[in-house]
Amino acid sequence: MANPWILDRKSKMHIKDKLAEAERTKRHVFSFEFFPPKTEQGVINLYDRMYNMHDFGPAFIDVTWGAGGSRSQITCEIVHKAQTFFGLETCMHLTCTDMPSSKIDEALEAAHTAGCTNILALRGDPPREEEKWQAVEGGFRYARDLVKYIKQRYGNWFDIGVAGYPEGLEDNQDQDLLMEHLKEKIDAGGTFIVTQMFYDADNFLLWVDKVRAAGINVPIVPGIMPIQTWDSFKRRVGHMNVHVPQKIINGLEPIRNDDAQVQEVGKDLIAEMCQKILDSGKIFALHFYTMNLAKSTRLVLEELGLVPKDGTPSNRALPWRQSLGLNRREEDVRPIFWKNRNKSYVARTQDWDEFPNGRWGDSRSPAFGELDAYDVGLKGTNEQNIKLWGKPETLRDVANLFIRFLEGKLKSLPWSESPITSEALAIQSELVDLNRRGFLTITSQPSVNGVKSNHPIHGWGPQGGYVYQKAYVELLVSPQLIEELIGRIEKNPNITYYAVTQDNHLRTNAPTDGPNAITWGVFPGKEIVQPTIVETVSFLAWKDEAFKLGTDWAKCHSAMSPSRHLIDSIMDTWYLINIVDNDFHQTLDIFKLFEGLEVKNMDEPASAETIMNGHQPDARPPVNGEHKAAVNGSSNKDLN
Amino acid sequence: MANPWILDRKSKMHIKDKLAEAERTKRHVFSFEFFPPKTEQGVINLYDRMYNMHDFGPAFIDVTWGAGGSRSQITCEIVHKAQTFFGLETCMHLTCTDMPSSKIDEALEAAHTAGCTNILALRGDPPREEEKWQAVEGGFRYARDLVKYIKQRYGNWFDIGVAGYPEGLEDNQDQDLLMEHLKEKIDAGGTFIVTQMFYDADNFLLWVDKVRAAGINVPIVPGIMPIQTWDSFKRRVGHMNVHVPQKIINGLEPIRNDDAQVQEVGKDLIAEMCQKILDSGKIFALHFYTMNLAKSTRLVLEELGLVPKDGTPSNRALPWRQSLGLNRREEDVRPIFWKNRNKSYVARTQDWDEFPNGRWGDSRSPAFGELDAYDVGLKGTNEQNIKLWGKPETLRDVANLFIRFLEGKLKSLPWSESPITSEALAIQSELVDLNRRGFLTITSQPSVNGVKSNHPIHGWGPQGGYVYQKAYVELLVSPQLIEELIGRIEKNPNITYYAVTQDNHLRTNAPTDGPNAITWGVFPGKEIVQPTIVETVSFLAWKDEAFKLGTDWAKCHSAMSPSRHLIDSIMDTWYLINIVDNDFHQTLDIFKLFEGLEVKNMDEPASAETIMNGHQPDARPPVNGEHKAAVNGSSNKDLN
Repeated sequence: MANPWILDRKSKMHIKDKLAEAERTKRHVFSFEFFPPKTEQGVINLYDRMYNMHDFGPAFIDVTWGAGGSRSQITCEIVHKAQTFFGLETCMHLTCTDMPSSKIDEALEAAHTAGCTNILALRGDPPREEEKWQAVEGGFRYARDLVKYIKQRYGNWFDIGVAGYPEGLEDNQDQDLLMEHLKEKIDAGGTFIVTQMFYDADNFLLWVDKVRAAGINVPIVPGIMPIQTWDSFKRRVGHMNVHVPQKIINGLEPIRNDDAQVQEVGKDLIAEMCQKILDSGKIFALHFYTMNLAKSTRLVLEELGLVPKDGTPSNRALPWRQSLGLNRREEDVRPIFWKNRNKSYVARTQDWDEFPNGRWGDSRSPAFGELDAYDVGLKGTNEQNIKLWGKPETLRDVANLFIRFLEGKLKSLPWSESPITSEALAIQSELVDLNRRGFLTITSQPSVNGVKSNHPIHGWGPQGGYVYQKAYVELLVSPQLIEELIGRIEKNPNITYYAVTQDNHLRTNAPTDGPNAITWGVFPGKEIVQPTIVETVSFLAWKDEAFKLGTDWAKCHSAMSPSRHLIDSIMDTWYLINIVDNDFHQTLDIFKLFEGLEVKNMDEPASAETIMNGHQPDARPPVNGEHKAAVNGSSNKDLN
Repeated sequence: MANPWILDRKSKMHIKDKLAEAERTKRHVFSFEFFPPKTEQGVINLYDRMYNMHDFGPAFIDVTWGAGGSRSQITCEIVHKAQTFFGLETCMHLTCTDMPSSKIDEALEAAHTAGCTNILALRGDPPREEEKWQAVEGGFRYARDLVKYIKQRYGNWFDIGVAGYPEGLEDNQDQDLLMEHLKEKIDAGGTFIVTQMFYDADNFLLWVDKVRAAGINVPIVPGIMPIQTWDSFKRRVGHMNVHVPQKIINGLEPIRNDDAQVQEVGKDLIAEMCQKILDSGKIFALHFYTMNLAKSTRLVLEELGLVPKDGTPSNRALPWRQSLGLNRREEDVRPIFWKNRNKSYVARTQDWDEFPNGRWGDSRSPAFGELDAYDVGLKGTNEQNIKLWGKPETLRDVANLFIRFLEGKLKSLPWSESPITSEALAIQSELVDLNRRGFLTITSQPSVNGVKSNHPIHGWGPQGGYVYQKAYVELLVSPQLIEELIGRIEKNPNITYYAVTQDNHLRTNAPTDGPNAITWGVFPGKEIVQPTIVETVSFLAWKDEAFKLGTDWAKCHSAMSPSRHLIDSIMDTWYLINIVDNDFHQTLDIFKLFEGLEVKNMDEPASAETIMNGHQPDARPPVNGEHKAAVNGSSNKDLN
């Protein structure tokens, strides 16, 4: 009785194994192809799109080779990001065009360092000025030579795919010769075939039969180009010399000027074509030429029923998105603090020699990377962020931002790079209520007392298991209320907390320095998996980041503005506190701690005094770490 | 909010910390003193007693110093066994009598190697022939010198206790001088005081006040000698020159010839004395001079309400008895296979450099020690074992032994060193039924789906947690039925198994080579603890031991006897199989696998044919590992 999840974790390094598994289990899979954008903003947009398209569940993605200097750099960078930060199994294209073997070496080493283990080896198009393809000096003439070279240099590290041409090549229409080349590429070490785009399913299926007749038995992944607009469709089929069946032309031509209709009808036509291919029983994977766009590909996948819907059983391997960076595939424990800032966690730990696997070791005292690394600080320009989050002038304004985020009306916060997830719905009203009373909630999870591992919302890990989590909330708390809150926490033996100010005044009731498991799962035939924890050292590293994100946000506003003043005051004087209810049978007990507590004067304009101490009659005397003037608040010297 | 369990685990190395914790929590603790017996059989009996007295829950035990050559060796051996095999925190006595510093060094090193971290430093009695105490050449004159020396040699490794004399010493009745000596011993580094025996509580409490008045603030543990018989009581109080209050004499003298009555009344008198001492609020620990006997000490502890009763909340740290051997205190993961042979597991792993802690690491491929080590093979002489287990001649006879063991009517089996535990009661009838049908059950546990960690039967670990376990059964299965059983198992995705013959024919459906957590617990502020697992390498090591135990048992019977023949046949041809139901919500599903299965001809006299193949008409063809002739069964050549 093989456990598919474990097979999957071990085998997903190589696309051939993923394809074999799809064929074995008769489960259809798909992949996406992206190309390196020409502008920096284009690259940033692509990253957003790749991050989101992860949720569709591609078996892998391709990144095409950006022939020529800086363009090839961008390919390598995208491969690294996809693999390491987005956890997308990535296949890097590599062409012979304009590539001496030294440049091939560089590219392969970049892929290796990124943790990438799959290459699509291509001859490539002839450079524009040439009529016929020529190898560069010291370069490769044919894709088969490139395949051989990669195998020779890297052994079995890379799985190597090759291209198939069901409708021939512009400079070579000799089908017999092309089949001979294909056979040579496979014999040289190619293990799967990705085809050029086409719209003629019948022709493709005939070609598949010919491939098989030629003794080629590796999986074939047909290249599918969704239809965006009539013009782009026509341009591309013309450029690629692709045969378009009359049915498609008849369907699209009458509506050629209505882009929305073209997309809708195009979706139906492409889905029909894909369905025909899959129904043949010969093909188990589809490769989408996305043109770096999500929508038309998503529509086709939805039509085919291949993307997860609400209520779809979970097939996540872990509660958080894994990194597939070099040496990271076995990583399965992370602190919960970066739950909404996955990329930042990966960035700050990417220099680690090994990653927590099975448990967060006692001896580990990991150094977290600096806050100024790429992917760690606040994203976006000042203008973009002000557009997104406005110019808050009172604590009420700030709290309302958090509330809008919790209600799904705001796509991000300085501390959350993505919109709120469906998991938070279970405690949404409690979280909204907390923010309404001036507690700013950064991260949270409800408790889960053993649901099946394929539970649509909480599930993760292999089939047949049970998953658990402890109720957790992390929030910014005004110094007005921190003593009362901690006093209440310490009366409850089930609750542990860590509270810290920006200047490192740490308080905790944790029984040890060791980790506290916050999420865990029990699976057939395995040790207990505990993928999220709370722990001191990483909390202090996260604390720096959390306060820096607030300070960065403040800096989006001009130096003397009320918003700058307000946000800085919060960062300078409030506590960041995380609270765990260790009794995972209880979800709502954690919120009882806050009963009747509310920050005073939330509607008063920003002044350090208001934000820090309010007018609570029993304001306690200042303690270490709370006696710091707001950086830009010159009007308040005596803070108590 | 300190977690007492964690404090306890860290601090129990030193008795002073245990005593401080008792005082802090106002929880009364107690300790036992043993002395090295003079005969080998005496030592074996003492081990049994120590093993059983662990269940009373002593905070620590003392082992007195056996002055003179081999007697001191025995002390060291007992300390090692107590610490490593029985998990008893042990304080080794060490005296100046007849001890040059080289011998002191040897003794300290032996204690250190045993993992012992506590020494009671004594001057010792003068050798019998001397009238006055004399130091040997190169030895120590006073206990305080010994204290200093130990500190100088071992720093803080050893916690050092010293003796107190509330009623003076035979050769020194000067209380002021004795108090001065006591102060010197404490100033030299003694951290707790164990007193000489006494029966006068009032005098003792006055003495305690004097000790405190002298500026000595370390914990005092009064030495209590339970009363066994009138004669031994009189002899001892005479020998020690101890004052006996009139009330005790009045109570005992009239019944002096009735040992049972003396013990009963003595118990009341001693308990009353102890209660008075504890009620003073000055003392939180009692030290019992057990004279290597359990009963009268147990009676006093029961009278005082200090021993756990049925239904007492669990305070076990782990589901199995921990070893306190050197480097083993942090060990918290073991294979379940040795559940009933704890000492053997410790013996076979004692050469490991480190012990599984937190998880059974992927990289660990530990070498298990040889089967001929002490504490591994079958105990007892042939005669003793035949007396215990009889001379089985049919499989029914063997099965009935297993049934009697399960019903608590037999104190051990070759595979179980101790009687059945209360945990097995939940599945007792199912286990009995299995044996009745010829499945010989070696180890088992019912499933537990999250009970409180202080549950009287299943509980372990710190307060406020929840513990879980998967249903497990390990048994010997006839080759008649193994195919049918494995076929049924493999139809159930929740069940994993390992089956193996003596000659290493291993079969399994486990998804990986890695461990499967069988018992685990979730505790406030901690990682998930998973103290028992099933795993391949250790199962194969256990397999060797399990079959060897059977073969050893066979060898208790003469070479041509039916019993020898019967048991050898089972060992040679049957499978040892372990079965885990990974769905821990189910306890009884595991037994459904056996529905309708029964070994044929259980009542036929032993012949290899009967035992191995029965007369099942559809007997399958032989497979590798089952085609081995019984060693002593010359009558069966063609086994199928």
